[in-house]
Amino acid sequence: MAGRTDTRKQIVEAASALFHARSYTAVGVSAVCEQAGVSKGSFFHFFESKRDLALAVIDAFQDRIGETVLTDAFSGGVAPLQRLERFVNALYAFQKAWAKQLGHVPGCPFGNIAMEQATQDEVLRQKVDGCLRAVADHLRTAVADAVASGAIEEVDVDATAEAMLAYVEGVQLLAKTRNDPELIRQLGPAITSIRVP
Amino acid sequence: MAGRTDTRKQIVEAASALFHARSYTAVGVSAVCEQAGVSKGSFFHFFESKRDLALAVIDAFQDRIGETVLTDAFSGGVAPLQRLERFVNALYAFQKAWAKQLGHVPGCPFGNIAMEQATQDEVLRQKVDGCLRAVADHLRTAVADAVASGAIEEVDVDATAEAMLAYVEGVQLLAKTRNDPELIRQLGPAITSIRVP
Repeated sequence: MAGRTDTRKQIVEAASALFHARSYTAVGVSAVCEQAGVSKGSFFHFFESKRDLALAVIDAFQDRIGETVLTDAFSGGVAPLQRLERFVNALYAFQKAWAKQLGHVPGCPFGNIAMEQATQDEVLRQKVDGCLRAVADHLRTAVADAVASGAIEEVDVDATAEAMLAYVEGVQLLAKTRNDPELIRQLGPAITSIRVP
Repeated sequence: MAGRTDTRKQIVEAASALFHARSYTAVGVSAVCEQAGVSKGSFFHFFESKRDLALAVIDAFQDRIGETVLTDAFSGGVAPLQRLERFVNALYAFQKAWAKQLGHVPGCPFGNIAMEQATQDEVLRQKVDGCLRAVADHLRTAVADAVASGAIEEVDVDATAEAMLAYVEGVQLLAKTRNDPELIRQLGPAITSIRVP
């Protein structure tokens, strides 16, 4: 059973790197198999389709972002506005590390799939929508705590959290367009200025 | 000469609609030719490659967004913060009209190409970067005028304009992910709250 798990994991890791470095549409199953060092027969033993693989890749990214970005940034013991700052700093570190590895700022893995697939594949659209809503939940708690503690004035908590999510997605999009992770370091902290009254 | 111009225009219009509805990578030259009702021979008479066509499509979108969004929103006679509100309202109208036509919120045409191609095609990355910088120029003027008139406090004008650009790109990304243009109407006006000190 260990071999099975390892092979599946190898395929997902290869696809994660390839999709993130290029795009979902640009990378075929053959390229994933070659990178993972597995046969197509083995691939289709684990995944019914490329979309099935994409769902597993999105799960893997969600786990990874949970571990490297969200858990630490949104830990309850930290003051609410400081959580937001930690969050954008962690996104900066995440994008900078990938940029060093790939030679390009890759952008948010959820945002990439959303921009590429949302009009074409309803299953993938709903999947990444769920991932981004999970991020919005953390932001909502931070905003609600900031209002409750008097750190910011009364706002529409739900809409302000969504606006903050939109902002960090946009900052990552712009950093990818400029191919400059430093833009995230420069613009990220302005997340705390955003208010929907 | 009229025939030549019309054929080129037909190809660019067909490709604009197809790229915007699906994605750049997902749409091949054959599909564009079929949609435009032209032969491949005719296509390659006007364009050396699909990338060449993409550059023409981006130019066409820039003209269209200039006419339908930027010129009106950023007209000098309007108060600076009101320009920002007009800008997000025009983006809402733009995305809503396309969503009605396509059945999906298509997102920003520049942001789409950026997210899909920035790591893969340096020419396309630089092209859309230029388009987004042109939008940032309008935002910079509005922010500078807002500071000069005392409508907002002193800020880092350049960085605040970039942060506002990131925000509208992110709002359009989120509206595409949710497939809900109303998100732009709801979140857009918070552009005026963004500050980089």
